[in-house]
Amino acid sequence: MKERILDEAERLFWKYGVRSVTMEDIARKLGISKKTIYQHFSDKEQILYQVIEGKTGRDQFAMECMVVGITNPVEELLSVLSLMQKNADQISPNLLIDIKRYYPQAFAIFRQYKEEQIMRSILENIQKGISQGLYRADINPTILARLRVEQIELAFDNDIFPTDQYSMHDIQSELTHHFVRGMLTEKGFTIYNQFLNRGVQPIIYENK
Amino acid sequence: MKERILDEAERLFWKYGVRSVTMEDIARKLGISKKTIYQHFSDKEQILYQVIEGKTGRDQFAMECMVVGITNPVEELLSVLSLMQKNADQISPNLLIDIKRYYPQAFAIFRQYKEEQIMRSILENIQKGISQGLYRADINPTILARLRVEQIELAFDNDIFPTDQYSMHDIQSELTHHFVRGMLTEKGFTIYNQFLNRGVQPIIYENK
Repeated sequence: MKERILDEAERLFWKYGVRSVTMEDIARKLGISKKTIYQHFSDKEQILYQVIEGKTGRDQFAMECMVVGITNPVEELLSVLSLMQKNADQISPNLLIDIKRYYPQAFAIFRQYKEEQIMRSILENIQKGISQGLYRADINPTILARLRVEQIELAFDNDIFPTDQYSMHDIQSELTHHFVRGMLTEKGFTIYNQFLNRGVQPIIYENK
Repeated sequence: MKERILDEAERLFWKYGVRSVTMEDIARKLGISKKTIYQHFSDKEQILYQVIEGKTGRDQFAMECMVVGITNPVEELLSVLSLMQKNADQISPNLLIDIKRYYPQAFAIFRQYKEEQIMRSILENIQKGISQGLYRADINPTILARLRVEQIELAFDNDIFPTDQYSMHDIQSELTHHFVRGMLTEKGFTIYNQFLNRGVQPIIYENK
């Protein structure tokens, strides 16, 4: 039952945000009583907390599975973009605004995930790119990894990119491609262009 | 006298931050009494406020003078970097931390300057770069201009780039070069490399 409650809550939070979803809504959708929910969770914040813990764990797992077999760091960053875009399409902009403003404990899990997992994987990516000669040898890996981590957060900042003016899809695509291109060597550009030519991102990538 | 007070306060704030500089310090340096200062300013915050208004105005003017005669947007961004680095060398990291934390009104001037002047000039730079074929035609100018404005602020964020681990000089150089490179077309790279070869930035810029 606990899992069913978490699954349903996740679906509702992702679709409508957190504030507008009540314990009543979750119970009704599952055809159970609110009392049953309170047997497992003390309040909505606790549900949210566990939903996010589960989600960041699964995201990390999905990312690790996806990059198995990808030995090329350019392709890796662009594949992570696809995963992020798939996620973004399913998320109500309200969700992130709600969490950031009203649920500091849940937001702290995001932050920790960002600090530990994302920072580490980007740093590894940059170091691999340099050693393979795809990224410039003169870049400072920690400064750029930090920039990238912050970019991911910027994309979710409603004051910087108001959701009524920008789509999360476009922001992530723009920032990711710009981030990758800013590091590429000539050899890196060859790999990058090959990847795009496979039709993964149908954009005009060179203005000659 | 008002101008002398502002000049001396600016020098002290830039060197030591705001919190550790007292009205007494400013008066002593000028060989005047605190009373004379209070004839012109109600408190330290008011002095800071006017110092920053003056400074952002002069910076804007310096930037406008500098780019006169530069018709090439790549060179323009890299010249602004030199100006920023020159400024950064003179600023105590305490100054920005102090202002952000303790002087919201003064920080608001920075924000407004950032929103209006910097955003506008970066957007113009990007549009010029695209029309000259130096930046990719497929970039989204407003998303990247917004990214750049936020990058400038990130560089000053002590939580993200602790001043004991990174120099402002390195962060700004790294972020600016990465920002420019991420937009360049092949034609743009030619111009960029020519500019670097003139010895302005002695870095290894290509890892072949």
